[in-house]
Amino acid sequence: MTQLDKVRKWVNDNETDVAYISNPKSIEYLTGFASDPVERILGLFVFADEDPFLFAPALEVEAIHDTGWKYPVYGYLDHEHPFALIAEQIKKRVNNPVQWAIEKTNLTIDHFNSIKKQFPSAAFEKNLTPFIQKLRLIKTSDEIEKLDAAGREADLAFKIGFEAVQAGRTEAEIAAELEYVLKKKGVMQMSFDTLIQAGAHAAEPHGATGMNKIKNNELVLFDLGTIHQGYISDASRTVAVGQPNDKALDIYKVCLDAQLTAQAKARPGMIAEDLDKIARDIITKAGYGEYFIHRLGHGMGMGEHEFPSIMEGNKMILEEGMCFSIEPGIYIPGVAGVRIEDCVHITKNGCEPFTHTSKELTYVG
Amino acid sequence: MTQLDKVRKWVNDNETDVAYISNPKSIEYLTGFASDPVERILGLFVFADEDPFLFAPALEVEAIHDTGWKYPVYGYLDHEHPFALIAEQIKKRVNNPVQWAIEKTNLTIDHFNSIKKQFPSAAFEKNLTPFIQKLRLIKTSDEIEKLDAAGREADLAFKIGFEAVQAGRTEAEIAAELEYVLKKKGVMQMSFDTLIQAGAHAAEPHGATGMNKIKNNELVLFDLGTIHQGYISDASRTVAVGQPNDKALDIYKVCLDAQLTAQAKARPGMIAEDLDKIARDIITKAGYGEYFIHRLGHGMGMGEHEFPSIMEGNKMILEEGMCFSIEPGIYIPGVAGVRIEDCVHITKNGCEPFTHTSKELTYVG
Repeated sequence: MTQLDKVRKWVNDNETDVAYISNPKSIEYLTGFASDPVERILGLFVFADEDPFLFAPALEVEAIHDTGWKYPVYGYLDHEHPFALIAEQIKKRVNNPVQWAIEKTNLTIDHFNSIKKQFPSAAFEKNLTPFIQKLRLIKTSDEIEKLDAAGREADLAFKIGFEAVQAGRTEAEIAAELEYVLKKKGVMQMSFDTLIQAGAHAAEPHGATGMNKIKNNELVLFDLGTIHQGYISDASRTVAVGQPNDKALDIYKVCLDAQLTAQAKARPGMIAEDLDKIARDIITKAGYGEYFIHRLGHGMGMGEHEFPSIMEGNKMILEEGMCFSIEPGIYIPGVAGVRIEDCVHITKNGCEPFTHTSKELTYVG
Repeated sequence: MTQLDKVRKWVNDNETDVAYISNPKSIEYLTGFASDPVERILGLFVFADEDPFLFAPALEVEAIHDTGWKYPVYGYLDHEHPFALIAEQIKKRVNNPVQWAIEKTNLTIDHFNSIKKQFPSAAFEKNLTPFIQKLRLIKTSDEIEKLDAAGREADLAFKIGFEAVQAGRTEAEIAAELEYVLKKKGVMQMSFDTLIQAGAHAAEPHGATGMNKIKNNELVLFDLGTIHQGYISDASRTVAVGQPNDKALDIYKVCLDAQLTAQAKARPGMIAEDLDKIARDIITKAGYGEYFIHRLGHGMGMGEHEFPSIMEGNKMILEEGMCFSIEPGIYIPGVAGVRIEDCVHITKNGCEPFTHTSKELTYVG
């Protein structure tokens, strides 16, 4: 049963007349067609007893056919009214659709009002978001393979980056060289702007790669990832140039201990927030609790903002096939910042990382 | 009066108790703070008689202070309930806010329901989207300066790219080198994936830079842009390697005539669709009308999907401060593609481009 068939089954089981899938990421997940329509309309409509259809800007129709999509697709031109055309197609399939399911975390008030105007007596209470999130939560073996391939690209990126580090070069220079070499090797897309932060700059977890020059005897933080067939990698390493001071080395040691311990203990049946606590307790006990200012990890797959979130308050039970980051960080303003991160997938007995670059402190430059 | 003050005035004039601004681009526009919170909550709340406040993930708070934001900002941790905290702050300012304004093209059903749950008897009919879109339509002198700076970066990018072109190199190689040299010079962000298309490949206006090798005696199309302090550049040039055939040279000449003529005639008071027609008539008269398959231009500023759209059917009157692209293109499948594009801002008497790279056919390689 394909993932799209599971949505059809849900529609049937939940006595729904039409499911309107509006999130481009959900559409990519269910159809293989990736697109950001920005202000234009892209929708997938699913029925219990009828074939689904895609509705898209006219200039995307050919690309949709190219993905092998076997059901109808209807394009519209910029001057046409998309929701009137959508309503026309729906009414051909279901005479008077009353029960709608929508993606409440994605659909905007404006688009909601536009569709409601076409179907004024319909009910829009059913929410498809939790079901699709749950589908995406457990990765298939095909998805794990793509995530593995993206992980190997991230390992390659670290290798290139570490070789490029030298005191006197800017963070930006290293990032540029890393992406240049990757692109020449055919790795065309990063999953986010490559983050390289040297010295005290790394203590700003939301700072950006810049013209800051790498100095001798400091730590340099790398956070990077690539996109492989729609699936991302995301990993962090912190390396040493020269001989960083004792404080920097100490926070590295504590952060590494937290990362390795959490990764060794992650397994099915564990509660998400307990995994966060394992890493957090180690950092807190070492006296750096106040400097670990974010959750331990985030779910990932097609993006870096999926479930499960590995944080206090999340009682979700980890299951085989879930994928997330394990990324403790210690950021002491004005001093240094360390983050060490692998993304992993939960296996039958534990977890496996997608990246394999050594996490022992590496001296470069 | 700042743009934020104008929103306060709107709130006052429209008898609104609270305006909830949820679109990260609107927040960047009004506060200078740029962030994509993805699934986290970032909101700007504006009142008639009270100072506005920002509400953001805790780990963004420092970055917000760094932008010089002079009003309160409240951070929340991942395990806290953001909308309960937001409600608490609002109630400190307005005891019983009834009239809300929201951004209907941005706010999702889920977030709408969350805020409604906190204020069950409030009315959410007022829509802030049209007002903010109108504000953003007319660029301030500060915005024009940033767009000018981004334009200079695009000119630099062309210079680097043209020097890198050589028969036998791939489009991807040129793009990688161009971005590498830019980054080393501190130009860190492209506004979209750099597009380089050689020969007949350029006849696919929705194609992508790839492993296609540049050959002698053909045209090569560049479409690129950078981001400068949140504002983009976007420009296209088509250059010659060796001696392209007469057909290619002819469509270049016609496309250039259309571009130069439209740019010379763009001025305040003109209707958007009339500008499209000026360029389109030249191309149609030369016999290539069927090969000019997109609108003449799009609005731009913080992104490339702003208003005004320069196309048939848009009766908007051009005003001083509006910014948009003028980019006629001729694409003959299997033969060659040409696009020539400057983005411009409307001035008191005409328009000024942000890019200044020569548009006469340049021979490279």
